[in-house]
Amino acid sequence: MGEESISNIDLVKNDPSLLRLKKETNLENLSKEELISRVISLEKHVQQLRNVIAKNSASQMPTVIENRKKDKKFEFSKYKRRHVLLKICYFGWDYMGFAVQEDAGKTIESELFAALLKSKLIDSRETSNYHRCGRTDRGVSSYGQVISIDLRSNLTEGPGIFEPEGYTGTNKNIKEEEVNYCNILNRNLPDNIKVTAWAPLSNTKFSARFDCNGRSYKYFFPRGNLDLKRMEKGGKLLIGPHDFRNFCKMDVGNGVVEYMRRIDSLTVQCVHRDKQGEDSPYDMCQVNIVGKAYLWHQIRCIMAVLFLIGEGKEEPEVITQLLDVDANPCRPAYSMADYLPLNLFHCNFDDINWEYDQVSMAYVLKTLQKLWSEHSVKTQMIRSCLEDLEPHSQEQICSQVEHISQARKDKVYTPLLKMQKCPSLDDKILTVAKRRKIDLES
Amino acid sequence: MGEESISNIDLVKNDPSLLRLKKETNLENLSKEELISRVISLEKHVQQLRNVIAKNSASQMPTVIENRKKDKKFEFSKYKRRHVLLKICYFGWDYMGFAVQEDAGKTIESELFAALLKSKLIDSRETSNYHRCGRTDRGVSSYGQVISIDLRSNLTEGPGIFEPEGYTGTNKNIKEEEVNYCNILNRNLPDNIKVTAWAPLSNTKFSARFDCNGRSYKYFFPRGNLDLKRMEKGGKLLIGPHDFRNFCKMDVGNGVVEYMRRIDSLTVQCVHRDKQGEDSPYDMCQVNIVGKAYLWHQIRCIMAVLFLIGEGKEEPEVITQLLDVDANPCRPAYSMADYLPLNLFHCNFDDINWEYDQVSMAYVLKTLQKLWSEHSVKTQMIRSCLEDLEPHSQEQICSQVEHISQARKDKVYTPLLKMQKCPSLDDKILTVAKRRKIDLES
Repeated sequence: MGEESISNIDLVKNDPSLLRLKKETNLENLSKEELISRVISLEKHVQQLRNVIAKNSASQMPTVIENRKKDKKFEFSKYKRRHVLLKICYFGWDYMGFAVQEDAGKTIESELFAALLKSKLIDSRETSNYHRCGRTDRGVSSYGQVISIDLRSNLTEGPGIFEPEGYTGTNKNIKEEEVNYCNILNRNLPDNIKVTAWAPLSNTKFSARFDCNGRSYKYFFPRGNLDLKRMEKGGKLLIGPHDFRNFCKMDVGNGVVEYMRRIDSLTVQCVHRDKQGEDSPYDMCQVNIVGKAYLWHQIRCIMAVLFLIGEGKEEPEVITQLLDVDANPCRPAYSMADYLPLNLFHCNFDDINWEYDQVSMAYVLKTLQKLWSEHSVKTQMIRSCLEDLEPHSQEQICSQVEHISQARKDKVYTPLLKMQKCPSLDDKILTVAKRRKIDLES
Repeated sequence: MGEESISNIDLVKNDPSLLRLKKETNLENLSKEELISRVISLEKHVQQLRNVIAKNSASQMPTVIENRKKDKKFEFSKYKRRHVLLKICYFGWDYMGFAVQEDAGKTIESELFAALLKSKLIDSRETSNYHRCGRTDRGVSSYGQVISIDLRSNLTEGPGIFEPEGYTGTNKNIKEEEVNYCNILNRNLPDNIKVTAWAPLSNTKFSARFDCNGRSYKYFFPRGNLDLKRMEKGGKLLIGPHDFRNFCKMDVGNGVVEYMRRIDSLTVQCVHRDKQGEDSPYDMCQVNIVGKAYLWHQIRCIMAVLFLIGEGKEEPEVITQLLDVDANPCRPAYSMADYLPLNLFHCNFDDINWEYDQVSMAYVLKTLQKLWSEHSVKTQMIRSCLEDLEPHSQEQICSQVEHISQARKDKVYTPLLKMQKCPSLDDKILTVAKRRKIDLES
C-alpha cells in the first residue's frame, strides 16, 4: 500500500470519488494560506496515524537486531564455547510457530535468536551448531522444548567446553564462574518465552533432535458434556506401533511416505475441579500422550476423534477401524481440534543433569505467576458471569468444548466412516509425482 | 487526543515545528490547484491508514457505520418507539473504556451504537434518549451495566411504547411480535459485548442513570500470600457514609469537590479452590462492594489499601485513619490496583421485570462459554507448567498478586501514613481556580 504520488495531479484530478470529495469540502473556496495550513495539519495527522500503526503492530513483527556493525567489536574468538542443552518454556498463542519463517511475523525461534545474539552468547545462528528437539506449529505451546547449541563460555575447562575454530584466547581462566545462561537469556526474552534449565554436554556431538528418545504432549480441555472414560477407552486403543495415516495430515510433498509411529502411553484425566466433590462441565481435563516421534498434526487429529467418542457420537472402537489402513486407506475429512490447548510438555533424554539456576528460577516463576494471574482473573470473571446468567436459561447449554473440538455442527451427524474422504496415500504420491514431472518439464 | 482544528490558522502558523515543515516542503511554491490535489491526496492517505489500523488490529478501532446516506431509505417515522432498559455484559480489557472518545480507539459505547444503528433500532444517538447507569474506565468490565434508551418498536401498543415526534405510522398493528432486541443486537456485537436482558419502561422518564439506587462491584484476585480475614476486617471499616477522598483520584477539575459517599456492604471471599480441602496461593478470591455511587477510581484505591493490609504491611485500622480526613487531609501517594479484575457487577433498580429471551440466551451462553474455555485452557496450561517447575526452586515464590496490587517493590516498605502525599482538596481547588483565572485572562 504505497503512498499516492502527490505530484500525480492528473490521476487525482480525474478520480470520480475525489472529484466528489473536492466539491463537498469546498476546497476551491479556501485561500492558499488556508490550504497550506490544511496540508500541514493533514501531514501531521498522517504521522500520528503512522505512529499508532507502529505502536499497535510492535507485537506482530519479530524482534530485529539492529546495527550489527556495533557487534563487530565483540571478540568471540577470545572465548571458548560450550555445547549445551537449553530447556525452553513458551506459550505459543501469540506466535506464528516455533520455526523462523520469512515474513511470517514473530516465531519462538526469532525471539530466541534475537536474545542469543543480543546477549553475545552466539556469533550467528549459522555458526552456533543449533538443533531443536521438536517443531511446534502456529499457536502451539511447549513446557519442555529442548535445543542443543554452542554458547560462548566464560571458562576454559569443564564439561562440554571446547576450542572453536579460530580460537585466539589465552587458556588462562578468564572468569571464575560460567555465564548464567538462563538468567541472561531470560532478561532478553519476552514474558511468554523462558529458559527454565540448562545442561552441559560432554559429548559435543549430542543433538537435541537426534538424541531425543521420547516426546510427550499434553492437551487441555474442559469437561463440557464429555464422557472421559469413553475417551480413555478409545485412547488406549492408540497405544503401540501403528500406521497413523488416518490420524494426521499427510505431508507427502515433503517426502513423508511412511506413517508408522509408536504411542507408548495415553491417559485422560480431570486435573482441576470447578466445584468440590462433583463433576462439572467447567472442570478442566487433560490428555497426556507419550511417544517417540509424531506425524504432522497427529495429536490434533487424535483429539478430534477422541472428542467425537467422548460426546457419544462415535464408539471407542472406531479407533481400531481407523488404524486398519487396509480396510480404511483414506482419512475421513474430519476437522482437527484447535491448536490452543496443545503443549509439547516433555522431551526425554538419557543421562542429562539439568541445572536450575536459582536466581533465574525466581525470575521465571514470578513471570509465569504474573501470566497465570492475568489469565486466571479473566477466566474467573467470565465464570462468575456465567454462574449468574445460566439460571435464567430454561435449556442447559453445554458448549464449553465446541470451539476446541472444532466438530462440524450439522443438524444430523455423519459418522466418521461415512464422511467424505481425503485422498489415499497412493493417490497423494501419484499427485506429487505428476506435479514434479510437470515442474521438471516446464 | 483530538484532531487539530484545521481552521485555527494562527495556531498552525506560529508553531515552530510546523514552520520548519512548511519551508521544507515548499508549500508556498505550489499553486492553489496543486495544494488542493495535495489536500485530497492526504485525506485519502489518512483514510487508508485508518483502514490499516482497523485491519491490523481489528480490535482497536471503533466500528464505523459508513454511508449513512443509504440508511435514509429506512423510514423510522413509520414506527413507534419503546422506552426500554438494556442489561449489557462486557469484558473491557480490549477496550478504551465504556464512553466514546474521539480518536481513542474502540469503546463499549462505540460498538453498542454501531450495533444499534446497523440493526435500525435507533435513528441516531442524539435522538435515542440514551442514558447509561455507570461509566467504566479503560480495561474495566461489567456484568450488569444498564442503559435506558428509546428503540424502534414493531408494535403499536404495550408498556413503554409511544409515538415519537413526526410519527407518520398508521396505528394498525404492524407486526404481531416485538423486535427481539437482545437477539438482533447480539448478532451485531463482538463476542465480548452482549445484551443479556431487556425491560420495557412504562414510565418514559425512567433513566438508567438517575433512577439507579445501587451499584455493586466485584474485584477478582488470587489468594497469593494474602490473609483474607485481615482484608475483610479492614474492608468492614469502610462500610457506611464516609468522606472517601483518601480512597480515590480527586477530580476537582471536573467539578467534584465533595467526597462523601456510602458503602452499604463489603465482603471478601474465596470463590474457587485450586486444590480440594486446602488453601493455596492459586485459589481465586473476590471482594464484593455494594454502594450507591462511587468516586473516580475508588474501588481500585480501596483494593490497593486492602492488599497492603492482606500482605501484613498495614494494620486493618489504617482504614479508619484514612477515613479521618481532618487528621489526614492528603492522600498518601500509593499506586491504585490494576484495572483488569474490576467488574461493575450489578446495577439495582426497583420494580423492573427483566426479560431473558431464550433464543438470545442460548446464543449468549454459547459465546461466553467459548470465551471462558479459551481463557481457562490458557490458565490451566500455565498452571501445569508452574506445578512442574516450582519443586525445582529452593525458595517458595508467591508473586501471584504482585502485578494486580501494583504495590511498590521497595526493599524497605514505607508505611502509608509516612508516604509522600498528594495535594489536599483545598490545594487542588486553589490550583484549578488559578488555572481557570489564567485561561480567562489569556
